[in-house]
Amino acid sequence: MQLSEYLIEKRQLINKQLQLFVRDYTVPGRLQDSIMYSIEAGGKRLRPVLLLATAKAFGASEEKVLGVASALEMVHTYSLIHDDLPAMDDDDMRRGLPTNHKRFDEATAILAGDALLALSSQVIAEDAHLNDRERVFLISELTKASGARGMVEGQMQDMLSENTQVSLEVLESIHRNKTGQLLKFSIMAGAYLGNASEEALSEMKEMAEALGLIFQIQDDILDVTGDSEVIGKPAGSDEGNHKSTYPQLLGLEGAIDQKERYVQIALQALTKAGVEQTRLAELIQYLSTRDH
Amino acid sequence: MQLSEYLIEKRQLINKQLQLFVRDYTVPGRLQDSIMYSIEAGGKRLRPVLLLATAKAFGASEEKVLGVASALEMVHTYSLIHDDLPAMDDDDMRRGLPTNHKRFDEATAILAGDALLALSSQVIAEDAHLNDRERVFLISELTKASGARGMVEGQMQDMLSENTQVSLEVLESIHRNKTGQLLKFSIMAGAYLGNASEEALSEMKEMAEALGLIFQIQDDILDVTGDSEVIGKPAGSDEGNHKSTYPQLLGLEGAIDQKERYVQIALQALTKAGVEQTRLAELIQYLSTRDH
Repeated sequence: MQLSEYLIEKRQLINKQLQLFVRDYTVPGRLQDSIMYSIEAGGKRLRPVLLLATAKAFGASEEKVLGVASALEMVHTYSLIHDDLPAMDDDDMRRGLPTNHKRFDEATAILAGDALLALSSQVIAEDAHLNDRERVFLISELTKASGARGMVEGQMQDMLSENTQVSLEVLESIHRNKTGQLLKFSIMAGAYLGNASEEALSEMKEMAEALGLIFQIQDDILDVTGDSEVIGKPAGSDEGNHKSTYPQLLGLEGAIDQKERYVQIALQALTKAGVEQTRLAELIQYLSTRDH
Repeated sequence: MQLSEYLIEKRQLINKQLQLFVRDYTVPGRLQDSIMYSIEAGGKRLRPVLLLATAKAFGASEEKVLGVASALEMVHTYSLIHDDLPAMDDDDMRRGLPTNHKRFDEATAILAGDALLALSSQVIAEDAHLNDRERVFLISELTKASGARGMVEGQMQDMLSENTQVSLEVLESIHRNKTGQLLKFSIMAGAYLGNASEEALSEMKEMAEALGLIFQIQDDILDVTGDSEVIGKPAGSDEGNHKSTYPQLLGLEGAIDQKERYVQIALQALTKAGVEQTRLAELIQYLSTRDH
């Protein structure tokens, strides 16, 4: 199967599971409509796809990991809803559709995000395909990645750094928290559920950290070189928002070189972990060269 | 020990544990300051006190349940931070201090609430005094009580019912979700960790549901009869906000009678569960007659 077909198949699988969860765990009404709206607004489902691909590489069944993959996407979706709010990034559009607070209202969007965050822990705690040890480990890791030492702290740092010139070191620290930790969870959860060895887990951690940076550098590059229609937001918006970016700190060529270095690190880690002949190698290349 | 001394002692215990958790699970900076501000703004710590008292009544050690009690208060604190936001109840003051978004800003307040919600699951998942079965059960129950079939749905319904006249049935359904489920968790978690029998759990559930309604009716009564200085918000604010209340639907006398009926139900359930000679009986009376 081509990667493009694989991505479509897995997205559909995840979308279906997410819709089932939202229907099962909410009651009809405005809150459910608002949650479902953002869940159905789609997106690449990158994090759950990475989790599924890693789990498969280490031999875990899709059935076993689909609930955790969905919980992970719930956390990502809640973070987008809250980040789009007027008090945060103040975005009116997301993935070609009005953002949640534009379609509903701010209060509803805040509550929809809160509900998705609570739900992410609940579906793992109640996942019949996992044992208690796995549930506890995954909830601990997911809340750590998304909380006050992870994603939320990264978003805070990102907002505080607007309109200031930050160093490459600070920029990487922000991205590691804001987007890196959740991407890392997708890889580590998949490897954990596939009972990867200690050595393999350590290599996959290195791969996951490189992947987070590849993802972010490509995001910044696209903001300079991308087509607004394709990336789904105005190109050049980072500059307009006075955000520090890799191309700004390293030049466009320097940013591309840096990204290539991380691609090599990620691929080598895959080899050392013994899973180089899997979708993961293709996914690293895909993330490094994606046009949106 | 008098109840008043008991309440002070337990509040101090909980406050200390909450501060430790926030310091351990966050990094210095604006997000930590904002979380700590709302945690230190105090409050009655009613939910964790009820959990501690119930656990004690059924023989669980304080050490075993203090982490869960703190997680519960984190959920309550996050909900207050988000409820106070301009898009929600738009409150400038809480417990005699500026609300989180007034002291910091809206973005920080949203993130502080998000972080506390994630942290509530994390501290249970990582609580060394619990086994995996207990952790999973408590996370499942707490997220259920606080999520899209619990507190968040209650807040949504409450906002939708503003400026409309609702029936007693709808009013009780809103309160059951908005405040009742978290109060119920405090009782049920304590009884569960004390290894209460199935029969006792069933009685305690009835007690907890009555307690939630006692709490809400007294809240509504205080809004009519209370002293603004003592209750910490303007008396009569429900009427100003066009909220349906018990005194409005039943008259003041009728509301007091209704509350008394629930007090009797709660006390009888305590007796049937075999824990009538405990702090819980005093706490029911206290909640029914509190002046703030």
